[in-house]
This record gives sequence, structure tokens and C-alpha cells, in this order.
Amino acid sequence: MRVGIIGSGMVGQTLAADLVRLGHAVVTGTRGPGKLEAFVAEHSGVRAASNAEAAAFGEMVLLATNWEGTREALDLAGPGNLNGKVVVDITNPLDFSTGRPALALSWNTSAGEQVQGWIPGARVVKALNTVTADAMLKPREFTGGEPDMFIAGNDAAAKGEVTQLLESVGWGVVDLGDITMSRLIEPLALIWITHGFNLGWTKRNHAFKLLNR
Amino acid sequence: MRVGIIGSGMVGQTLAADLVRLGHAVVTGTRGPGKLEAFVAEHSGVRAASNAEAAAFGEMVLLATNWEGTREALDLAGPGNLNGKVVVDITNPLDFSTGRPALALSWNTSAGEQVQGWIPGARVVKALNTVTADAMLKPREFTGGEPDMFIAGNDAAAKGEVTQLLESVGWGVVDLGDITMSRLIEPLALIWITHGFNLGWTKRNHAFKLLNR
Repeated sequence: MRVGIIGSGMVGQTLAADLVRLGHAVVTGTRGPGKLEAFVAEHSGVRAASNAEAAAFGEMVLLATNWEGTREALDLAGPGNLNGKVVVDITNPLDFSTGRPALALSWNTSAGEQVQGWIPGARVVKALNTVTADAMLKPREFTGGEPDMFIAGNDAAAKGEVTQLLESVGWGVVDLGDITMSRLIEPLALIWITHGFNLGWTKRNHAFKLLNR
Repeated sequence: MRVGIIGSGMVGQTLAADLVRLGHAVVTGTRGPGKLEAFVAEHSGVRAASNAEAAAFGEMVLLATNWEGTREALDLAGPGNLNGKVVVDITNPLDFSTGRPALALSWNTSAGEQVQGWIPGARVVKALNTVTADAMLKPREFTGGEPDMFIAGNDAAAKGEVTQLLESVGWGVVDLGDITMSRLIEPLALIWITHGFNLGWTKRNHAFKLLNR
């Protein structure tokens, strides 16, 4: 699959490397492709380009930006380049201004909904935001069974495509509903982040699983 | 242990029956002890009384009310009867007015915080709100490992007592921090509720687990 990644920080780079390893073709979008030279040299198969090129290239586009840079990154990507495409929103609207992580948005909205509003022609799926970047495509590294990824979005076919990708690497997938369910999945990310913060920030190696009886 | 339960609906009754089975002495508080006659007759060891008597009786008090009835129930219990006591807040601030469950409070507060504010002398611990009543004290019924219960509260000793109870029946316990962390644990309950709602409301038999790698 051709995957475009918007966001060239740690999350975007990790996803790019892992997707290439899985056999996908990847273009990582960035405002400064030059700064990714070393990364691209180390990961054959990854190409660095503008956000617009990444958006145009991808059959699926992963949105891996810091929340505060998200809208600008989408504007640079060009909403028209995303029309009809599956856009996986991995962002978390975090506010660190109080000294500990909190959500930056109120209960009545979510990053997922705002992203869908900014690119109305895209088919946004909230996913992958509840686990550390290095584990997003390596869920089989967790012990104690198959972890679950909670997803949400308005387009059933788009969720099907994301589910296929997630299941192929080893996630169980729990579809919570339309994109407003991001209001629940983003606080879930904050449980993961807070627990990591409490343990000492380096220990973020956990994922959620639903048990049944 | 002597346990008082405030709330005599399905959750309160289920907890009462399970706590007696575990060897605890239980008083279930209700506005109409008469309506619990059949239940009390079936569960020797459970006593029905007023909310004030339940509060006064308990070394630990479980708050198992519908959210909209919580403040009135605490007023009837008498905040003075709860001074210094561990009060486990199991409530979820739910709003069903839209036809599907949503949270009734904004991001900037939580049921846990409001409860702590209404009974300032008590040591409130948010816990047990993310699983169906019948599984609250029977986590070993889940398959696939030990499920985890997320808790929050301002008093470390109170969280220690709740942790001891929870671990004794088979929960892993994840302490997220002070009572404001209820802002995360209550949306987590809504993930559980929404998933159950999506599966058909009878299928609420799941619990969360944290996996590590």
C-alpha cells in the first residue's frame, strides 16, 4: 500500500520505518525535507517530501502531528489532496501547561472531530493514539495476549481498511462508533500517558486489552 | 470488614450479596428499607437500613447510586457519618437523553470530584465504575489474565485499603493519581458502556487490562 505520513517527528519517523519494514511504500511529509536526510538515508524505501506530496501519494494517510501543529499541517497538505482518502488521526490534544498532561479540548469535541471538520472530504479514522509510537505497528511485542486498539470514524469502509491494517500486525480492533467517539478514545490515551508519567516517563510500554467472561 | 452501601439498586444489591459471600458484614442503605425485604430474606448477612445507618455502620462505604440521585443520597447519609471514612465512588455521570450514553459532566470536573466536594471529610476513592456490577468483585471470571481496575483519590491510605480489597478478589490495580483523575476513569467507563451498547446491551461482560512489553 502507498502510505503518506503527515508529521515528521518521532511518531511519523517510527511509523515510516515500520511501514517500510512491512512492505509498504512510504512518503513522509515535512516542512523541511532536508532535516530528514539522515533518517531517509538510514531507511531505504522511505522518501521525504512536502506534506502536500505525502498527502497526494498516500492511498492511506497517517496524521502524526503534535496537536498544536495539526491544522497548519493539514492546510499545507492541502485538503483537496485528501479527498476520499482514509486519514488515520493519531493526534492527541494534550496540554502540558499545568506540569502534568491534560486534555486540551473540552468534553464536547475532540481532535478527531476537529480533524474531520478541517478535511471534510477525507474519511477520518481515529486510531493508534493510545500506544507509544514504537508499538503502534508491533503489538505482538506485548505479553499476555493480543492487545486491543479502539477506533472511531464516520465511514465504515474506511474503518474496514484501518482494521485490516491493524489486524494484520496483531491488534484486536474495537470499533466504538462514529468520529465523536474520539471524545472517549482521547481520554483513554491520557490514561496511558498519565500511567506512564506516574511510572517515570520512560516506561510507556503498555497497551489496553479487553477481557471477556 | 463492616461495609455500608449507599444505593439499593442493582449495583448496590449485587455488591451487598458478593461482599457477604466474601465474609464481610453489610448494611445496605435505602430510602425505603421495606422494598428490600425480599432481597434481604434471600441474602442472609445483608441488612437493609437508612442511608444514614449504612454510612454510620461502614468502615468502608460504597457509593452505588444513579448519578442524578447521588447528592441527595449523600445528604440523607449525612456527611458527618462519612468523616474520615473511605468512600468508594462507583458512580458514572451518564446522560442518556440523546438516545445513546454520553457523559453528563464536562472535561473540567467529574463525579469523583463532585462527590469528594459534597463529603469533604470523607476519603473518596474512584473505583469499580468501569465494569458491570456482577463482575466488580468477581474479576477472576474474566479469561485471558488478571484484569486491571483504575482508581483515583486524594488519600494514599484510603487508596491502599481499596487496593487491598480489590487485589484480594483478583484485580490488578492501577492508581492514576488524585481524585481529578476521575476525569479519565469516567470516560473509560463510557468506553465500556458504549462497547456494550454497540454489541447489544446484554453483552457487558468485558473488563480492561493493561498489557506490558
